[in-house]
Amino acid sequence: MKEITSFQNPSIKNLVLLQSKSKARRDQNVFLVEGQQEIELCVSGGFEFVEVYFCPDYIPLEQVEALVQSTEILNLVHQKIYRKIAYRGSTEGLVAVVKTKANKLQDLVLESKAPLILVAEAPEKPGNIGALLRTADACGADAVLIADLKTDLYHPNIIRSSVGTVFTNQIGLGTSEEIIQFLDSHNIPMFCAILQEAKDYTLVDYTGATALVMGTESTGLTEIWREASHQNIIIPMQGEVDSMNVSVASGILLFEAVRQRKQ
Amino acid sequence: MKEITSFQNPSIKNLVLLQSKSKARRDQNVFLVEGQQEIELCVSGGFEFVEVYFCPDYIPLEQVEALVQSTEILNLVHQKIYRKIAYRGSTEGLVAVVKTKANKLQDLVLESKAPLILVAEAPEKPGNIGALLRTADACGADAVLIADLKTDLYHPNIIRSSVGTVFTNQIGLGTSEEIIQFLDSHNIPMFCAILQEAKDYTLVDYTGATALVMGTESTGLTEIWREASHQNIIIPMQGEVDSMNVSVASGILLFEAVRQRKQ
Repeated sequence: MKEITSFQNPSIKNLVLLQSKSKARRDQNVFLVEGQQEIELCVSGGFEFVEVYFCPDYIPLEQVEALVQSTEILNLVHQKIYRKIAYRGSTEGLVAVVKTKANKLQDLVLESKAPLILVAEAPEKPGNIGALLRTADACGADAVLIADLKTDLYHPNIIRSSVGTVFTNQIGLGTSEEIIQFLDSHNIPMFCAILQEAKDYTLVDYTGATALVMGTESTGLTEIWREASHQNIIIPMQGEVDSMNVSVASGILLFEAVRQRKQ
Repeated sequence: MKEITSFQNPSIKNLVLLQSKSKARRDQNVFLVEGQQEIELCVSGGFEFVEVYFCPDYIPLEQVEALVQSTEILNLVHQKIYRKIAYRGSTEGLVAVVKTKANKLQDLVLESKAPLILVAEAPEKPGNIGALLRTADACGADAVLIADLKTDLYHPNIIRSSVGTVFTNQIGLGTSEEIIQFLDSHNIPMFCAILQEAKDYTLVDYTGATALVMGTESTGLTEIWREASHQNIIIPMQGEVDSMNVSVASGILLFEAVRQRKQ
């Protein structure tokens, strides 16, 4: 374990750089996690920790060691330095530098005979992506596949809004084409949220292998999904406005699948 | 119709004040709406318009007149002034000053024999409140009751995140005590999202009158609801994290009620 007492320490300088520049995070292939719950989920997600900074004024060493097995990567920082590196102004006393995962489709492990998979095409808002991941966690989905992700999956706002489930969900990234190929090769039918020629979502059987595919709120799914879809599904709406929040709609579909599977 | 050409015009000065000060909105009992879709929903919600400002460079007079029946409250503003008053930087050419509704419980009209009502206790984030209202609209809920609302219901972020359904939903505001009394006096049973002694939400019958009651994500429902609850319900979770976004959870419960009622 190292002890860091100076702002001039190169590790601290690099940490500040990683916090402010997404390019630096990309170049070094890492992201930052802060706070105990999120770091715990990061550990259970099997992520590799590069460095951990902790401040004993906020969290005792034993508690840090229980979380992070290797003491070699531990850095004890003094309070005045911790205050500078705690990017959420939190007083949890813990910041970790963690190696990014590639989230390749071919690395996904689907053990269930009837996997339940959520697919989102080109989701934009970090808050929505986080909420999707949180719902997928809650319903025990086997994987979340994200097509043409426009942002960094380990964006601080996604980590926060997912309450750490971005670390524990199985996530696969790819183009729409690659994801369709993946689902086809695993014989997983695609139920796509598309208005045209759609069935009421409650009238469709999700007890077999199921991929629920959601587009964006503004434009829906693109043509390639319309062609690949095995069955278009719709949540019938009875109000003044004819669209729903994508994370709410995903929750309704996923939990309908869970309900059917329980029976 | 008046034509406004100067920033010194008292109406423009007041409009700028209303935009920046929530106290001014409270004192004058009004709020602001911008953009055509939201103003349309405001009209269908039966709100009273105090003044409407439009810029003919962005929207033709005929279109404004089709929306707002009375021309007496119309103000034509020049482009350079419109740019100053369009608070979202929008180019829809339309800003309205609208009278607040009191949203009293006793004013609610429940026509259905088996009303479906969403109750939220002390929701905090405008984004969540907006999402709740949007979901209530989508499922055709008869009313949304909000207990101990901490914020202004016509907060710009609630208007935006509700995509205008804050104007079209029937909304009742009150303390938890008042809302419980209201539901009791209408013989509407309360199904409360409370972990203790709860039934799986899919095993409960919502085909009769139903109030689904949600607490906050962090602390859940308060004691008064625990005592009033006719049946505690739970969405069983299978993941690493044991909480859900309140608007996603509300969507799952509301649409389960809708599913049962369709059968």
